[in-house]
Amino acid sequence: MASPEIETLTQALARLPGLGPRSARRAVLHLLKKREGAMAPLLRALEAVNERLATCDICGNVDTSNPCGVCTDPRRDSRALCVVEEVSDLWALDRSRLFPGRFHVLGGRLSALEGVRPEDLAIDSLIRRIAAGGIDEVVLAMNATLEGQTTAHYIAERIEQYPVRLTQLAHGLPVGGELDYLDEGTLAQALRARRPIG
Amino acid sequence: MASPEIETLTQALARLPGLGPRSARRAVLHLLKKREGAMAPLLRALEAVNERLATCDICGNVDTSNPCGVCTDPRRDSRALCVVEEVSDLWALDRSRLFPGRFHVLGGRLSALEGVRPEDLAIDSLIRRIAAGGIDEVVLAMNATLEGQTTAHYIAERIEQYPVRLTQLAHGLPVGGELDYLDEGTLAQALRARRPIG
Repeated sequence: MASPEIETLTQALARLPGLGPRSARRAVLHLLKKREGAMAPLLRALEAVNERLATCDICGNVDTSNPCGVCTDPRRDSRALCVVEEVSDLWALDRSRLFPGRFHVLGGRLSALEGVRPEDLAIDSLIRRIAAGGIDEVVLAMNATLEGQTTAHYIAERIEQYPVRLTQLAHGLPVGGELDYLDEGTLAQALRARRPIG
Repeated sequence: MASPEIETLTQALARLPGLGPRSARRAVLHLLKKREGAMAPLLRALEAVNERLATCDICGNVDTSNPCGVCTDPRRDSRALCVVEEVSDLWALDRSRLFPGRFHVLGGRLSALEGVRPEDLAIDSLIRRIAAGGIDEVVLAMNATLEGQTTAHYIAERIEQYPVRLTQLAHGLPVGGELDYLDEGTLAQALRARRPIG
């Protein structure tokens, strides 16, 4: 019923995560109504990103420059390296601004089920970065899933021979977590890693 | 942390209804990862719509042609006219494909609170369409809100003098509605408009 162009736009939006056909339609209506205020800025922003989009040769981040903004930021401590599974993990950790170092994106996790082997991930390039020296600490920030932890173990073994401090994110209660609602695995890890008070 | 271009794109997406900062970020990551499969089609679709976008001079619909696809569709019955508040209402009714006629978009509803007067809505153009003749039935499909119904009453009075059948959408139980959960207003209307069985 809407024109083919509008239908195509609705479908393109509906394929974004978090949007379905219904919300895509609402979004399109919003764009149609606010041509100057919403449609034009979105179009310009998409064009700008699409034009300059690049994957960082050093860390695997996606950015509009290569090397990316994180790798070239002089305020960051180049001696600390945080290894993550995906670009989204890099962004999530970076938003918190708690990690002052640089990152390395693996591009996934080892998975026998999905047939993801070490050579499918950016592990060799990680080892080369560490072997090149100048790095004191490597933080393995994999997801707290079976596959994430398997990946962390595998990488830990490969890094062992290099003179770096190897750490991983703490596991335990999330902020606001109520014991009654948490799974046994989390409770077990929180109990195992319990710390003296004061 | 992300480049200015990526930040701008995230903010443009976050302003869409149904998306917030968080889901906009996820959507941007999706676009960055799937440059060919998601970014390029969305960009092309936006460009196509932005280029051809127009408001229909006849009915007020937004489309990529003027007059719009609904007004120029020869399979539609030009003798039946459905009056709606917003373009989104036109789309909602049209999706159901239950109304075979044409539409007229008012562009809002009368509202003393928001200072919306009859001359702010496309009511005069509606009267001109009806006065021009060739229309047998006008369906007032305003929202079942106080303001929607006030608007319907006002338009009904203006149309009275013309030889058209004037109807409005039925009010009553929505499909799947359970009496226990429905408001008194809906129940009262469903009871008042009760119909003989069989």
